[in-house]
Amino acid sequence: MDALRATPGWHAVAGRPDDALMAAILDEAARLAAGVIAPLDGPGDRSGARHEGGRVTLPPGARDGFRALAEGGWLALELPEALGGAGLPLAVFAAVNPAFERASPALMMAAGSTRAAARLLAEHADPATRDDWVPALAAGLRTATICISEPGAGSDLARIRTRARHDGTGWRVTGDKIWISFGDHDLTDRIGHCVLARSTDDPGTRGLSLFLVERGPGVACTGIERKLGLHASPTCALHFDAAPARLIGTEGRGLAQLFTMIRQMRLTVGTQGLGVALRCLDMARAHAAERCQGGPPDAPPLPIARHPDIRRHLARIAMRVDLLRLALLEAAVSADLGRDNRCAWLLPMIKTFGAELAFDAADMAVTVLGGAGYTRDHPAEQALRDARVFAIYEGTTAMQAQDFLIRQSLACEGRLLDDFLDRARGDCADCPLRLAVIEDFAALMTAPRAETRLPRLRAQADPLMRAAWIAVQAWLSARIPGSAAADLFLATARPALALQAAEARGAHRFIDMKGH
Amino acid sequence: MDALRATPGWHAVAGRPDDALMAAILDEAARLAAGVIAPLDGPGDRSGARHEGGRVTLPPGARDGFRALAEGGWLALELPEALGGAGLPLAVFAAVNPAFERASPALMMAAGSTRAAARLLAEHADPATRDDWVPALAAGLRTATICISEPGAGSDLARIRTRARHDGTGWRVTGDKIWISFGDHDLTDRIGHCVLARSTDDPGTRGLSLFLVERGPGVACTGIERKLGLHASPTCALHFDAAPARLIGTEGRGLAQLFTMIRQMRLTVGTQGLGVALRCLDMARAHAAERCQGGPPDAPPLPIARHPDIRRHLARIAMRVDLLRLALLEAAVSADLGRDNRCAWLLPMIKTFGAELAFDAADMAVTVLGGAGYTRDHPAEQALRDARVFAIYEGTTAMQAQDFLIRQSLACEGRLLDDFLDRARGDCADCPLRLAVIEDFAALMTAPRAETRLPRLRAQADPLMRAAWIAVQAWLSARIPGSAAADLFLATARPALALQAAEARGAHRFIDMKGH
Repeated sequence: MDALRATPGWHAVAGRPDDALMAAILDEAARLAAGVIAPLDGPGDRSGARHEGGRVTLPPGARDGFRALAEGGWLALELPEALGGAGLPLAVFAAVNPAFERASPALMMAAGSTRAAARLLAEHADPATRDDWVPALAAGLRTATICISEPGAGSDLARIRTRARHDGTGWRVTGDKIWISFGDHDLTDRIGHCVLARSTDDPGTRGLSLFLVERGPGVACTGIERKLGLHASPTCALHFDAAPARLIGTEGRGLAQLFTMIRQMRLTVGTQGLGVALRCLDMARAHAAERCQGGPPDAPPLPIARHPDIRRHLARIAMRVDLLRLALLEAAVSADLGRDNRCAWLLPMIKTFGAELAFDAADMAVTVLGGAGYTRDHPAEQALRDARVFAIYEGTTAMQAQDFLIRQSLACEGRLLDDFLDRARGDCADCPLRLAVIEDFAALMTAPRAETRLPRLRAQADPLMRAAWIAVQAWLSARIPGSAAADLFLATARPALALQAAEARGAHRFIDMKGH
Repeated sequence: MDALRATPGWHAVAGRPDDALMAAILDEAARLAAGVIAPLDGPGDRSGARHEGGRVTLPPGARDGFRALAEGGWLALELPEALGGAGLPLAVFAAVNPAFERASPALMMAAGSTRAAARLLAEHADPATRDDWVPALAAGLRTATICISEPGAGSDLARIRTRARHDGTGWRVTGDKIWISFGDHDLTDRIGHCVLARSTDDPGTRGLSLFLVERGPGVACTGIERKLGLHASPTCALHFDAAPARLIGTEGRGLAQLFTMIRQMRLTVGTQGLGVALRCLDMARAHAAERCQGGPPDAPPLPIARHPDIRRHLARIAMRVDLLRLALLEAAVSADLGRDNRCAWLLPMIKTFGAELAFDAADMAVTVLGGAGYTRDHPAEQALRDARVFAIYEGTTAMQAQDFLIRQSLACEGRLLDDFLDRARGDCADCPLRLAVIEDFAALMTAPRAETRLPRLRAQADPLMRAAWIAVQAWLSARIPGSAAADLFLATARPALALQAAEARGAHRFIDMKGH
């Protein structure tokens, strides 16, 4: 609630719940998450999803957990009321979803693709398809997936080979898709696959269109991945063999239409990162308060929560958690206010650094728990395994960095970058240290803005996005009350940014002259 | 070989093999590691060690692998010839062991504690015990463990409660020890436990003595940990019930005598880190050369090894690998030349940053492999799970940092720190950038050297050790030929050190005024 109130513009969002309702929503989400969803997470990791006879079986309880989410309306907070949603602002989703992701990121993968597909269909499908599918997805009576990657085309969509052909009566899709989360399962009988496929001979991504293909004849789940973590979330390989399909939206506009979904998925990974980080932080804090070690041997040992090194580890993660929460709400409120571009500028960072925060928080929890943290007796090791994929799926960090730098920051003469710099300069004017971080970042971007060689830009995208995130965090830190952690963050922000600047300036050394 | 030749003093080490013999030793180790040990590692992770009926069974093949190591003399390279070793310098161990750790860090845990115990017994046991045990350990006919941690005393040795009593005929040990690597197994019939136990009522660590307790009556393995990784290395809980014991060395000197072992164990973790990092680096390189993605859609896709971001990831890890190897050899050669203090100053860093490098290299390999790296189809995920414990066992990073700062760097008026600074200034005199890093580090240490408040020192030990490692790497980088990675390392060393300096200056904020 404090973070929502601290987000400028929240009070201007149309249809926002008042404070009392918002507090009730958050309480109810936390209650359901802790009482119903969280107990499924550890057992789900241990038993995992199973693939037998072409069908996927989820761990016990998953079906009940998903039903509870659906019946509470949590799958469709932000969908229009006319299509079965609650019609709430995206900021409510951003505020609520971390509670569920904290409880079980694996089960929430079913919700993530379903709500993203619902959004896609709500926006682009013909009215009959939309009215048939979106309310069913909103109610959790059906689920949906997004099918993009193929064996020969992961991040490289121009190489997609799955074909769609119109046989006179309708479309049929043939090809193989991989890395499909909840591509098969026993939560619901009907599963809709949003499939990116090539419907014309146009080269590259221009020949790509979006199709809705339903589980049934012509669709086979040929296997699931054995993964490091997220065992209760089946990652499927699907084979489509002349499967009946419906075109979604406009032929040849498949990739463009997908961007509706991409926003939703990136925001969701941000909420996943925040949720898992919160859980790890609480786990580490609880252990540090209980575990006694050190101090004079003739006195009772002290809780390790009093050791400065442990306190510093906890405080640093807590600060990053607070800043990520503010960034998520800032992005969602921007979208709610119709400023989609501001949201788009933040999203690659929210996705990337949400993913990294979850992994780092799990790593920190293992450190604080010591040997115990390395065992399966504590959930820290599961969180570490689960969180590692957040930086890979829904676009790797390298892809987010390219998007951040080239598409979001430098396109249109850097309009979005200037928009951020203007706001940040204004908001930080009364704090010289914060302002210095913003100006350091602005100065760092001067050379890339004048750079015309694409390989040079690509090579330094990663450190530049990291520098931008430091600047964004410095800007957002003004919304948080002072603390030791906030002081340390600000005292280290300029040196941390200087390090990324040195990385960016040195990155051109790794351009392969023969290649790019 | 290049790294050995680049290490000053190697040519002055007594009993060193000539270049031809050294090359033959390295080749033979690599052959055995790749041909015999490495094939056990993946299957060992999947089947794991099992505990049934009080006995531990290792995965199939472990016994043959261990015998091959023993028969090749690899367990005792650095032990005296009179006790069954090869009498080679410690630097030969440091150069050779990464090959085996690379092949299977889990199986090598049996070798690690056995050789550390052999060294301890060689130095401190009475002649009869020494002559009975050390040659048998050197030959791999018996193994040995180090038993320190207890349920109520992990890092906090003053709280050890295991008791040793002399009943007139001999010593008997009673108590519980946990986290005992290879505390039980089926590699050999006889296992010797080097147990730290309280033999007098002196408070703190003064009442601690070392005992050799053999598997047999009075010793029970009550369970093994279910861990994130290193599944083929059983981590045992042992219960001693009036178990017959032999005193090792002098009563009340148990902790002091352990330092013989601690040097060996820290160096071993360094070789583990290097070995696992090398394996991950090669895995990532091979995948990057094979995996094609991107480039114009009408041309064949390019190997991702040509993408600048991938090249930068690979080059940074490769640079850290080269620098860790040099640090390991520098420390070992220092010990071989009788300069144990120089070795001791480096060891907390070698242990800590060896551990972190292995984890970071595994993490990088997962990144380069993408979704595939997150699956059990590739060994990157196993390396990530295995390597996470390196920073925990044999003294956590927090303990290493305390040792580095308080015991190694500031004690004796900073004699060892000055020794490093003098050498580094001399060796870096011809490179202003390197020299600047050394001077930045020297300046950073000025305040801690004048600091008399122990809590203030403890609070900043971690960032100061990180700063020292940057300085050590800058110093060692002069021994490596120039490259893009070396240039980037030097260009980022000062900003990276400045960041640690800011962390160190801010760390006092986390001192708990009520506690420390």
